[in-house]
Amino acid sequence: MSRAEERNAERRGEGAESAERERCIVDLERSYAQALDRQDELAHLRARFMIAEPELIYLDGNSLGRLPQQTAQRMQQVVAEEWGRGLIRGWNGGWMDAAARIGGKIGALLGAQPDEVLAADSTSVNLYKLALAALRRQHGRYKIITDDLNFPSDLYILQQICALLGRPYRVEIVPSPDGIHGPVERLAAAIDEDTALVTLSHTAFKSGYTYDMPAVSALAQAQGALVLWDLSHSAGAVPIDLNGARVDLAVGCTYKYLNGGPGAPAFLYVRRDLQAELENPIAGWMGQQKLFDFALDYAPAPGLRRFLTGTPPILSLSAIEPGVDLLLEAGMARVRAKSAAQTEYLVGLWEAELAPLGFRLNSPRAVEQRGSHVSLGHDEALRIDLALIEEMGVLPDFRRPDSIRLGMAPLYTTFEELWTAVSALRAVVAERRYVRYDLPEGVVT
Amino acid sequence: MSRAEERNAERRGEGAESAERERCIVDLERSYAQALDRQDELAHLRARFMIAEPELIYLDGNSLGRLPQQTAQRMQQVVAEEWGRGLIRGWNGGWMDAAARIGGKIGALLGAQPDEVLAADSTSVNLYKLALAALRRQHGRYKIITDDLNFPSDLYILQQICALLGRPYRVEIVPSPDGIHGPVERLAAAIDEDTALVTLSHTAFKSGYTYDMPAVSALAQAQGALVLWDLSHSAGAVPIDLNGARVDLAVGCTYKYLNGGPGAPAFLYVRRDLQAELENPIAGWMGQQKLFDFALDYAPAPGLRRFLTGTPPILSLSAIEPGVDLLLEAGMARVRAKSAAQTEYLVGLWEAELAPLGFRLNSPRAVEQRGSHVSLGHDEALRIDLALIEEMGVLPDFRRPDSIRLGMAPLYTTFEELWTAVSALRAVVAERRYVRYDLPEGVVT
Repeated sequence: MSRAEERNAERRGEGAESAERERCIVDLERSYAQALDRQDELAHLRARFMIAEPELIYLDGNSLGRLPQQTAQRMQQVVAEEWGRGLIRGWNGGWMDAAARIGGKIGALLGAQPDEVLAADSTSVNLYKLALAALRRQHGRYKIITDDLNFPSDLYILQQICALLGRPYRVEIVPSPDGIHGPVERLAAAIDEDTALVTLSHTAFKSGYTYDMPAVSALAQAQGALVLWDLSHSAGAVPIDLNGARVDLAVGCTYKYLNGGPGAPAFLYVRRDLQAELENPIAGWMGQQKLFDFALDYAPAPGLRRFLTGTPPILSLSAIEPGVDLLLEAGMARVRAKSAAQTEYLVGLWEAELAPLGFRLNSPRAVEQRGSHVSLGHDEALRIDLALIEEMGVLPDFRRPDSIRLGMAPLYTTFEELWTAVSALRAVVAERRYVRYDLPEGVVT
Repeated sequence: MSRAEERNAERRGEGAESAERERCIVDLERSYAQALDRQDELAHLRARFMIAEPELIYLDGNSLGRLPQQTAQRMQQVVAEEWGRGLIRGWNGGWMDAAARIGGKIGALLGAQPDEVLAADSTSVNLYKLALAALRRQHGRYKIITDDLNFPSDLYILQQICALLGRPYRVEIVPSPDGIHGPVERLAAAIDEDTALVTLSHTAFKSGYTYDMPAVSALAQAQGALVLWDLSHSAGAVPIDLNGARVDLAVGCTYKYLNGGPGAPAFLYVRRDLQAELENPIAGWMGQQKLFDFALDYAPAPGLRRFLTGTPPILSLSAIEPGVDLLLEAGMARVRAKSAAQTEYLVGLWEAELAPLGFRLNSPRAVEQRGSHVSLGHDEALRIDLALIEEMGVLPDFRRPDSIRLGMAPLYTTFEELWTAVSALRAVVAERRYVRYDLPEGVVT
């Protein structure tokens, strides 16, 4: 009888003494993970990615997605053919409309119209543009509401916008009750007639908590506030229906579940009927009505293009498209089904294998409140993380103060990888391997 | 006797009847161009670029520089090795400091310290950051001075900043006396005690007029204004000594003479002793003091890094470096010597061969006022441009209303290419080849 079989048997022996535990019992055998992989209808897509080290368990696709094979080919084409051979002619050969074309495809993943999404700049720059535009449109309202689960860069952007505009503009950061779940009730209480904008991360970068987008959007709009979602940790992993939820504004990143490459340009969404009402504060020539007229006065393009600014980084922008195509091919419903199954499986393994070793679940227990990553807390999380990377061939990431983030990218993560990662986590703690790792001062974690 | 020899002889026969013409007589023979190429000490660098169509005369390196061979290799490495194999580990393997490392190399081309230049965002976004930061530092001064030779995107950015801040903030666009030369005297008159910022293109995008940077910087600073130069059309082509001229601020683009690739990230420069005084209005996590602490409040990094915002597009950013290395290898003095010789040669050919056919010089006649491109005006400029591209294998660009821009990139442009281009211009007009070209409505020119 294997160790996992023994533990399975023990747990079956415990019967129904804990309803909570009963609910999440999973089979602890590696063979069970392998069976789940055989049933996985997206399993064939893993071969569409470059897997340079098949033995490496990569659970950081929520931070940087893997390289699609097609992207490697596309980059050779863009570099050697479009730039090297085509030279300046590339602008008339597809570069000029790349921001809109790729944005349109991203929109198809998000329940948006093709003319409501652009690929451009960074998430932070896009947030700046849309949040400032929103404040200027919301005359007489001075408050931005967000929460402390939001990505800090978003908070910095909002704080500096308010500093620029001066009092009474201000940011109210509503605290999560537990550092894991979104403070929905507190948000509801905080949103009032002075609220210009409610902006939140749809899926929180640490805990993976995922807001009910239609419900929270409605809360904001009921008070006359605009709502702006940061989709960085949910786009490509969680089904999103921007039009269905009548979302006003959104931004997000393309290098996580969209597999667009390191620092790939971000995206921005503006609901069609709002586009003409909003002004881009960083008004560059790419958003000018007739850019090659080189008129001295700014006249914004009629639609969403007004939110472009400078010349886009074509190499990085082009790299986004094949990853988006892969998600469109997979279909977001299937992606979510697998993601939910994987996070449930991982939570089940945590409960059986890791909770007894001092691991805490720093993510929501309810699958419907969870994105595609699971954070496990531990008092020795950083040293465990270092040991996993150094000794166990597992690559998650660490978030201060105590979270190991395990990201599942349904296009290429296997159930067996999750099983192996949990075995590694178990071994590192059970065998106290982490104690060898010192924390150098100033280490980038 | 060849046609060029006949024309050479005719012109020698004219004697000194026009001092203006005397000054710029050049030998009109192709063999003379070939001799200049044989004497060119940078000629060997052309082989370091991808020349996919050797017969194509590419005179648009001032708009998009050619692909360095080394860049094609670098991109394969970044895509397949650093992203594909390295995955998230790339951030600790060179990506995190790429903005500063590549910025530092760009700084070496510009007479700046390594910690005074960053590669980031687009020129327009960088201009927004620095111009707005400058206005906020210049309490009690409300005027931005610029000219109508400046790139329109710069004007739009400045106008929108003033619209955001509200009256009495305003942009004063000082007109050029002739659309070619910078209005130095008018600028001197316009800069006053209410002037917060003087910002100009060092080299004008249409005419190629190049300001005397130390003199104009001193004009601004004498009145207590800050000066911000847009170096997009001079970086990598014109010697620049930012420290020597005590320049406060600068931005510029890397995809022209720096050969960084289409839409490659731009750069920004802040003089070291100003860095702590300026606040980045688009304050993102890359500019945070300790970014991986994920603190909820923004605390800017002590040095220039505070001007970073979001995660940089690593593929496009990495592509910049080999082109900058090539310029450092060539040395800016040699680059300028060749550029000056080439624009002088072209102006000489224009005078002899093209002026009689109705071509006007839309660039300064004095080489010290000229960047590395020459604009030739003609009443039929757009149709001539189309004929050059379609029939003659020459690729310049066109700028409304009447300019054909011929850009010389000293690292790869040959004198013989210039001779061939002028022959083609001559033939298109002399043989009235341009009349076949209709101008479709809405054509992107």
